Amino acid sequence: MVTEKEKMLAGQLYDASDPELKIMREQRRLLMQDFNAELDGKKRSELLKKWLGKTGDAIYMEPHFACDYGSNIYVGENFYANFNCTMLDVCEIHIGDNAMLGPNCQLLTPLHPLDAQERISGKEYGAPITIGDNVWLAGGVTILPGVTLGDNVVVGAGSVVTKSFGDNLVIAGNPARVIKEL
Amino acid sequence: MVTEKEKMLAGQLYDASDPELKIMREQRRLLMQDFNAELDGKKRSELLKKWLGKTGDAIYMEPHFACDYGSNIYVGENFYANFNCTMLDVCEIHIGDNAMLGPNCQLLTPLHPLDAQERISGKEYGAPITIGDNVWLAGGVTILPGVTLGDNVVVGAGSVVTKSFGDNLVIAGNPARVIKEL
Amino acid sequence: MVTEKEKMLAGQLYDASDPELKIMREQRRLLMQDFNAELDGKKRSELLKKWLGKTGDAIYMEPHFACDYGSNIYVGENFYANFNCTMLDVCEIHIGDNAMLGPNCQLLTPLHPLDAQERISGKEYGAPITIGDNVWLAGGVTILPGVTLGDNVVVGAGSVVTKSFGDNLVIAGNPARVIKEL
Repeated sequence: MVTEKEKMLAGQLYDASDPELKIMREQRRLLMQDFNAELDGKKRSELLKKWLGKTGDAIYMEPHFACDYGSNIYVGENFYANFNCTMLDVCEIHIGDNAMLGPNCQLLTPLHPLDAQERISGKEYGAPITIGDNVWLAGGVTILPGVTLGDNVVVGAGSVVTKSFGDNLVIAGNPARVIKEL
Repeated sequence: MVTEKEKMLAGQLYDASDPELKIMREQRRLLMQDFNAELDGKKRSELLKKWLGKTGDAIYMEPHFACDYGSNIYVGENFYANFNCTMLDVCEIHIGDNAMLGPNCQLLTPLHPLDAQERISGKEYGAPITIGDNVWLAGGVTILPGVTLGDNVVVGAGSVVTKSFGDNLVIAGNPARVIKEL
Repeated sequence: MVTEKEKMLAGQLYDASDPELKIMREQRRLLMQDFNAELDGKKRSELLKKWLGKTGDAIYMEPHFACDYGSNIYVGENFYANFNCTMLDVCEIHIGDNAMLGPNCQLLTPLHPLDAQERISGKEYGAPITIGDNVWLAGGVTILPGVTLGDNVVVGAGSVVTKSFGDNLVIAGNPARVIKEL
């Protein structure tokens, strides 16, 4: 027996209005509110550690954080995210150690069918995002569903990352392209 | 007799510091605060229905929503907008049925004169935005003043839509261009 | 004797975890919370005047404003910023008279080393942003560290400004390029 949650995490078409998923999202909205209202950065870190799927010990995030579930987000040691981070985690988001995210970054895993009739049926799906170690996403970076970034990657401010890239690169632009090899 | 509000909605140069408009904006800020503080999605929908110019029955929007007035926004049935939607509605914004807006989308109708002396006089104007049925704006899409999009249009994440497009298209980029015909 | 704060403002590598800087940021978070919770635009202006490095008399900013310190931001007369303005001011941000900033604009002065090992050491640096008189940044504009814009410049919505430009120009795109001379 396969639940809507299992289909969602597997990247298959699923029904987002499924009661189990709805209740999960509503519960996480309370965590989101607490997190965003908390002025003490250490307390915000503790809230994140209980909320996200897995985190390193030394992590820091500014408000306002927005996500679907939180439980499908896995971040490594020395994770840092600046203001207004958006992570839509219908599929898993994995971020390695020593990540730095500038303000207003978006990591988006959800997708909708391109066919209008299929899309408005309400069925949706997603694709995971995987980011290596020592990555710096500058301000306003958007990472699309299914993207993998290697280690030691720097993504220029305002970039839209539509495909995967390997290690030791500076990428930038919309769509993001290799600017420099490191 | 033509009021500043009438000029504004007609796309003519108007004075945004007009007392009638100022009071309207201030009143709507209270609605905005209530909406953004409300954790219950159904209650947010009810607040929107009283606030916006016209809406379908089944609508849903995440916080934080920001707009100028709200009363100049018209959305159809099955409207869905994710986190941090910004709609500046000095002119009318019309969105058809079954729209899906990703997080951090901006629909912007205001314009300022390009001539610096004219611009700093405080007079401004706008142009309406019209979006058809079954449209999906992915995360971080910006729609500029005067843009019309047809039915069944998909706009890629992080796109800046500077001109109008017809039906059955995938568009993406800054500025947005046709990527695929559907 | 050179403090971390002095190094930061001079654009040299500094340690952001320095206790003096940390306490400054924490104090400013309280000002940020007060500002963003304040519905009365005039009261928000008064809060800004006490908080920012220097401002004109007639200034206006919508919530939610996010910044590092605030004290390194200098804005002229008739400054106007719409919703969700982000200004990371580890170096000074100077904006002339009659500026108009659309919603979701980002002015970012911080930089991190491109070399991964140097970056994850925690040392960072920045470069100042200087914007002339009568500038209009449309919605969602991102200004990168070290950028100077002249007088009477209009920056198109969603632009990413990666280098400096002179007077009397319309610039747009990612990266921003000259679209029109005024």
